[in-house]
Amino acid sequence: MSAASVITLTTDFGLADAYVGTMKGVMLGIAPDARLVDITHQIRPQDVRQTAYVLYSVYRFFPPPTVHLVVVDPGVGGTRRAIALRTPRGSFVGPDNGVFSYVMAEQSVDMVVELTAPRYRGPRVSQTFHGRDIFAPAAAHLAAGVPIGQFGPPVPDPVTLPPPQLRVSPSVVNGEVLHVDHFGNVITSIGRLTWKAEKLTLKPAFRETRAQEVYFQADEALITTEGHEIYGVLRTYAEVQPGDVLALVGSTGHLEISVREGSGARELGLQAGDPVELRW
Amino acid sequence: MSAASVITLTTDFGLADAYVGTMKGVMLGIAPDARLVDITHQIRPQDVRQTAYVLYSVYRFFPPPTVHLVVVDPGVGGTRRAIALRTPRGSFVGPDNGVFSYVMAEQSVDMVVELTAPRYRGPRVSQTFHGRDIFAPAAAHLAAGVPIGQFGPPVPDPVTLPPPQLRVSPSVVNGEVLHVDHFGNVITSIGRLTWKAEKLTLKPAFRETRAQEVYFQADEALITTEGHEIYGVLRTYAEVQPGDVLALVGSTGHLEISVREGSGARELGLQAGDPVELRW
Amino acid sequence: MSAASVITLTTDFGLADAYVGTMKGVMLGIAPDARLVDITHQIRPQDVRQTAYVLYSVYRFFPPPTVHLVVVDPGVGGTRRAIALRTPRGSFVGPDNGVFSYVMAEQSVDMVVELTAPRYRGPRVSQTFHGRDIFAPAAAHLAAGVPIGQFGPPVPDPVTLPPPQLRVSPSVVNGEVLHVDHFGNVITSIGRLTWKAEKLTLKPAFRETRAQEVYFQADEALITTEGHEIYGVLRTYAEVQPGDVLALVGSTGHLEISVREGSGARELGLQAGDPVELRW
Repeated sequence: MSAASVITLTTDFGLADAYVGTMKGVMLGIAPDARLVDITHQIRPQDVRQTAYVLYSVYRFFPPPTVHLVVVDPGVGGTRRAIALRTPRGSFVGPDNGVFSYVMAEQSVDMVVELTAPRYRGPRVSQTFHGRDIFAPAAAHLAAGVPIGQFGPPVPDPVTLPPPQLRVSPSVVNGEVLHVDHFGNVITSIGRLTWKAEKLTLKPAFRETRAQEVYFQADEALITTEGHEIYGVLRTYAEVQPGDVLALVGSTGHLEISVREGSGARELGLQAGDPVELRW
Repeated sequence: MSAASVITLTTDFGLADAYVGTMKGVMLGIAPDARLVDITHQIRPQDVRQTAYVLYSVYRFFPPPTVHLVVVDPGVGGTRRAIALRTPRGSFVGPDNGVFSYVMAEQSVDMVVELTAPRYRGPRVSQTFHGRDIFAPAAAHLAAGVPIGQFGPPVPDPVTLPPPQLRVSPSVVNGEVLHVDHFGNVITSIGRLTWKAEKLTLKPAFRETRAQEVYFQADEALITTEGHEIYGVLRTYAEVQPGDVLALVGSTGHLEISVREGSGARELGLQAGDPVELRW
Repeated sequence: MSAASVITLTTDFGLADAYVGTMKGVMLGIAPDARLVDITHQIRPQDVRQTAYVLYSVYRFFPPPTVHLVVVDPGVGGTRRAIALRTPRGSFVGPDNGVFSYVMAEQSVDMVVELTAPRYRGPRVSQTFHGRDIFAPAAAHLAAGVPIGQFGPPVPDPVTLPPPQLRVSPSVVNGEVLHVDHFGNVITSIGRLTWKAEKLTLKPAFRETRAQEVYFQADEALITTEGHEIYGVLRTYAEVQPGDVLALVGSTGHLEISVREGSGARELGLQAGDPVELRW
């Protein structure tokens, strides 16, 4: 293999403590050539759903042998299992609390195992920091080539979150706000959308929603959310003036509500979970 | 080549979302051995001028084949060009909106090209995230050795910001605040200064200012800004007591106004753009 | 050597400026294969004691040839020395102001040297940024294999902070709050604790405290701090309900006071330096 394996890290540890560095030290002790790439350490403490969204939005852009390490773990020390799973687009290691739900909703999962094998854990396993003692060692051993089946027994029923709200009818789609980003862009569950001339096709991203594919004229769309109405779905910020509200197809293919050079979330008072309706 | 190429990243994406990770995944898919080094992702959203300063202050410290990737891009999806440029001190990739102005003001530029070649772009180009679809692929291909001329046609007239305010007369220099750092140090456009015994020589950093070289006695200097007066330019914080205001030659060779173990910006109420006068 | 050397970075530079990137550029110019791992750049400005704790909590998890670079340096430009030190668990580079105190309190130090050799410094040494001009070059040269003795003369008396407060009597231990982490967990000087069935053994972490080893029944412990009382030391958050206060043995083996899925520090109004008493 010419290039070293990649391990990404997604946690709610923040950047002020040494917890992330500790996990990196542990991994470099096991897999000295691994490439460590931070996704974010600023997940809201214990927010499993935000984690699921962030992972969903990013994993597809990494070369397939990548291992994605996730430590957002409100149940540490309790009965929740520690798991690893393998898909054709990479492997995932973390707590069995739903953080992988949105990945599993669009990827076939080859195998899910519980991380029980003592030889792939740290020398002592604390009750409060499985990131260091279970998850980081597992991610590093996976990256170093240990077959996933050696980490422990299969898990037939990993925990999954309910899929994001998305109901599709012939001329109306009901979704919700999935995420508000650093710029204040409001990313909705209404995706994935693709352009075909002036029409948009909606092909629901999450299998479990079982919503059907529909299409509509972009300039005949009406988006309603928390008492605000937005007419039309645009292709780019540049079609409006700075300060104007607009709806567009964001970079992950989901409907987004934004303010050019401003914050859509602040302007419209939106946050994760708020309902969004698209009608045409 | 014994060591892998270095790619630095400077954006206004913040650290809470997966946008930076997305670009890193894209780059590692193209240039698996590239070394990725974050400069900052906390540029104020869409602040092209702060970006130009940050790049100017850092690029010279990287070994020359380094590629500097910059994504601060208020004009994404509009008519602004995507460019790459090559200097003897490294290459630069980003939007053509002025972010490279201060680098170009002190480096000879061998070549500037527009990033149009489809084979060095992502598989699909969105209208909202050129960092992922145009800039990251270009930076990775450059780091992997693709000659800059293959990315697209030459750009004869890249966009440049006006140079920082700097007017030099025989016994007075008029400049401005360029940047306030994390510690509250106030970095001015009055640079670059070098010590020769107790005298300071000012050799203007930005070619376009066409200001002339002057020199003066450090302890005869009077710095005036927003109603405050500071006497003398010192060599080090240690020459004053904690809490005291001082002027010194900062690490990039520019005049800085600081408070020892405190915040000069807060103490004196200064921010980027405020005028600073140096008289002797 | 199959894997490249690791250099960790711990500073109070924040992430909004280019100072960290500058040091990384300097190091990659000297040691192009070095692996650079951020511990944190969010030490409170000039807080030497917090730095000492963060380093103490993390260094043991890195493979031994690691070089730990620390730049929290209120005395830059004054008379404080620049030093490097070597222990069996890795080397350390930074200002001689006490940041290595807690590491030295539990590791044997083979050698401490002052960083005076001009050939291992930057081309020019500023009075304000020794991170760039002295410490980063030294860390990179160390990582590249330069023997520590070549950096300068031995330092027989490195500066050390007083050890954390820890007084042990037959049935009472008096300690203090060492650190409050991102989650609001309150980490105390009362460590290191190890479980043996339902008993806890306290073996003081810091040699200089010369406190003796004691043991006690975990469920007979009473923790008192700032007017609050907590009964018993638990093994895991999962033993209480979300929102409840608890005391447990944290991941570094120190007594911690936490709120499950909440902030112990905020709930009890605690901060570094506050006294904590453990009685049984």
